[in-house]
Amino acid sequence: MKLLNEILGTKYPIIQGGMANIATGEFAAACSNAGALGIIGAGGMNADTLRENIRRCKQLTDKPFGVNIMLMHPQADEFAQIVVEEGVQVVTTGAGNPGKYVPMWKAAGIKVIPVVAAAVLAKHLEKLGIDAVIAEGTESGGHVGEMATMALVPQVVDAVDLPVIAAGGIADGRQLAAALALGACGVQVGTCLLVSEECPIHENYKAALLNAKDSDTIVTGRIGGSPVRVLKNRMSREYVRQEKAGADKMELEKYTLGSLRRAVFEGNTSTGSLMAGQVAGMLHEVRPVADILDDLWNGGRQRIHALSEEC
Amino acid sequence: MKLLNEILGTKYPIIQGGMANIATGEFAAACSNAGALGIIGAGGMNADTLRENIRRCKQLTDKPFGVNIMLMHPQADEFAQIVVEEGVQVVTTGAGNPGKYVPMWKAAGIKVIPVVAAAVLAKHLEKLGIDAVIAEGTESGGHVGEMATMALVPQVVDAVDLPVIAAGGIADGRQLAAALALGACGVQVGTCLLVSEECPIHENYKAALLNAKDSDTIVTGRIGGSPVRVLKNRMSREYVRQEKAGADKMELEKYTLGSLRRAVFEGNTSTGSLMAGQVAGMLHEVRPVADILDDLWNGGRQRIHALSEEC
Repeated sequence: MKLLNEILGTKYPIIQGGMANIATGEFAAACSNAGALGIIGAGGMNADTLRENIRRCKQLTDKPFGVNIMLMHPQADEFAQIVVEEGVQVVTTGAGNPGKYVPMWKAAGIKVIPVVAAAVLAKHLEKLGIDAVIAEGTESGGHVGEMATMALVPQVVDAVDLPVIAAGGIADGRQLAAALALGACGVQVGTCLLVSEECPIHENYKAALLNAKDSDTIVTGRIGGSPVRVLKNRMSREYVRQEKAGADKMELEKYTLGSLRRAVFEGNTSTGSLMAGQVAGMLHEVRPVADILDDLWNGGRQRIHALSEEC
Repeated sequence: MKLLNEILGTKYPIIQGGMANIATGEFAAACSNAGALGIIGAGGMNADTLRENIRRCKQLTDKPFGVNIMLMHPQADEFAQIVVEEGVQVVTTGAGNPGKYVPMWKAAGIKVIPVVAAAVLAKHLEKLGIDAVIAEGTESGGHVGEMATMALVPQVVDAVDLPVIAAGGIADGRQLAAALALGACGVQVGTCLLVSEECPIHENYKAALLNAKDSDTIVTGRIGGSPVRVLKNRMSREYVRQEKAGADKMELEKYTLGSLRRAVFEGNTSTGSLMAGQVAGMLHEVRPVADILDDLWNGGRQRIHALSEEC
């Protein structure tokens, strides 16, 4: 098996998740410089700010980096063009089927790595010539599917003849080792990087993550069909309560409108949407990205070698 | 780390899940004879049938076996006494806190291994002197919690000083290897044993499992607070549709009343409750229990040793 770092030219087989409103050009560059594949999250940007972030990232790192495009974003068509014009090396995609952009990106020499939540989309996209897939489990933060990483990754591995990257539920070396055991060639991580020194979220958001226990996340929007995993707080508990009571979309939107920006920029931990995965309970200190990545990879290798002695 | 087989005296570090209406004395004995810890599921039984099943199991195997007690069962108090009287070696528990029975069971020399869905119950029970815990992820079949195995197992491992057994999402050697990487000393499996030759469920139920794809399970009862994972079929889709539309408990009960028995005994795949985990899509043939266990353990060891060479 070729590990993801051999495919991407990175130090570690680790991709940084493209978190909307969080993964700026500076943060992506910091992650790339520390040995992962940094990813600019286009989710909270417009065409101009995406272009600026890509250019800033290029100035700040000479390592490979990529851009994540949320396919439901109203400017997705423009974003798809900008990554070609700016010579971005890798594109990851979320929330849909990137099929219509794949020929253009492949013609530009871009590596295309969609996020999938089930095997069927991976099989469909394989025919279009994508380079790899990220199989993301429901334990991850932000927008989630139904399948959990443990069950999803081997089923995607068996369905396609592509490198598979595991995401969801990965915050330390044990979980990286588990992802490789499942057949993944590497991992994508998000939540564990939120508590990095370089991550540009508000200090209150980081403090809430450090305080979280294992069962302190909740999924909003499950009934309405657009599930998002966040930390439990006043907003998310009330959202889920109203949702179960049958509130309509308009009513529910008053909770979520602008709530991610409230969390990230204003540090409002009671009405902000503090997106986080189920690994939030494993975060105990704010550290440099380099330390987090080193723990993931070297901790993972040590775990594998220790297990190999024991079994 | 002591592997689970050293703790239980079994051939493999594998427990058979105590599936209600499925895990009879005969089936538990077959699993014990094949090298796992067989478990009689008291869920669908009364006091007399539980006693009979324990006695039949003893006649059919000289290997260790156990009993699973659903704590919400109206006869749980009687069951708790019967396992003492019948000299059962291991008790696993589900759906609650077995605290009040622990002193009695420990005095009788029984190994007590509760199922937990979050770290907090594991920490509480540790003080009472239990022997191990089963950390069960939401990808499992039947009654489920919210945490996924990948995120749950290491957080339980870090919270207690007890052997931790992983459950949920485990059907082949890759997943057993992943569970050990996460820090578990062994695994509990259910879904993958449903398609064993020895499993006494209706052939239609087995056929439905063999036909399932990765995303063919659904969780009923999530809104009402008693989530159960089953295969998608007419009953479960309609249940979830009605539940989202705000149907009350009485209305919903007409779907589930007797539905597990309809699936298990009558093979009714359209209105039966075909309990199954997210690994259902990995089941491709009906095989002897011994072959399934051998694939789990030896496949898992091979995966670990192969990874150790690669990383």
